[in-house]
Amino acid sequence: MHIDPAVYVRSAIRSVPDWPKPGITFRDITPVLQDPRSFRVLIDLFVYRYMRQRLDLVAGIDARGFILGSVLAYELNLGFVPVRKKGKLPFQTVAEEYSLEYGNATVEMHTDSVRPGQRVLLIDDLIATGGTMVAASKLLQRLGANVIEAAAIIDLPYLGGSQALKDTGLPIYTVCSFDEGAA
Amino acid sequence: MHIDPAVYVRSAIRSVPDWPKPGITFRDITPVLQDPRSFRVLIDLFVYRYMRQRLDLVAGIDARGFILGSVLAYELNLGFVPVRKKGKLPFQTVAEEYSLEYGNATVEMHTDSVRPGQRVLLIDDLIATGGTMVAASKLLQRLGANVIEAAAIIDLPYLGGSQALKDTGLPIYTVCSFDEGAA
Repeated sequence: MHIDPAVYVRSAIRSVPDWPKPGITFRDITPVLQDPRSFRVLIDLFVYRYMRQRLDLVAGIDARGFILGSVLAYELNLGFVPVRKKGKLPFQTVAEEYSLEYGNATVEMHTDSVRPGQRVLLIDDLIATGGTMVAASKLLQRLGANVIEAAAIIDLPYLGGSQALKDTGLPIYTVCSFDEGAA
Repeated sequence: MHIDPAVYVRSAIRSVPDWPKPGITFRDITPVLQDPRSFRVLIDLFVYRYMRQRLDLVAGIDARGFILGSVLAYELNLGFVPVRKKGKLPFQTVAEEYSLEYGNATVEMHTDSVRPGQRVLLIDDLIATGGTMVAASKLLQRLGANVIEAAAIIDLPYLGGSQALKDTGLPIYTVCSFDEGAA
């Protein structure tokens, strides 16, 4: 019996109501990761998408983006670079601030993590408002990278992030999407 | 020409003086990750070590432990479970507090992330004082896991962590070690 890999992955995602606050439904990927079969199907979706693309690096966003990004980098024989929260990287960094619902946050990369012209896949677990992904993409472009695509497991289209990313001219790939509050 | 894989990995680690504070030399693995060759050699050291062991899960510690742990889980066809900093996991959790130089920190795991009797490899990038690793190991044991080994890239033996871990009866594997302030 064949399975649809994206449906298989989506069905393993756990929806946690009222987290991190009342009225919000959190989409939890940990059940996908802890089952060897769904984890493999998930990773292979990305591997098959990118195995024939010319890429140099995978940039993963702190912290769940590390989980996908590092496997993909290894499987595709690329380097892995972390996009980190402020104050985590020990060498010279470039930083980009972005807005959250309340206040601001900052992402950083090492200045020597990307060479000009390198072709980079940017990856995280989820696209919500897109703020982190847009900031990470700007950082990569400031370092001279060519951001080939921004990829994630989950899109929450009602928060507008994937549209905002497309509006910046960045190609997007997500495995599945959830409507607000839906199962 | 053959290389010694552990020497090759160690030589790619960057030593950053006076970070995060004066007198401390930080061992930075990002250069190992961003070069596809050293990243592959690094991961394969762990893959070869564990490929013939009976394991069920790899538990990676937030956040650099995710980078190693997820690749290993995929390559060994195991599940991956995150050990996270406090407040990051949305489902029911168990928590373990441990001491830092100033104050305390807490690690958490989902209560359903491990089933009793599962054989777990615990992984992080570095063993310093061993506080996080000991706390994570306790969490896993509280969930009924059999922690087969605690593994990391780097040991800083002068901080006593690897000895403290051994004293709890936990087998340890690290790729390389650095003496205090040494090149």
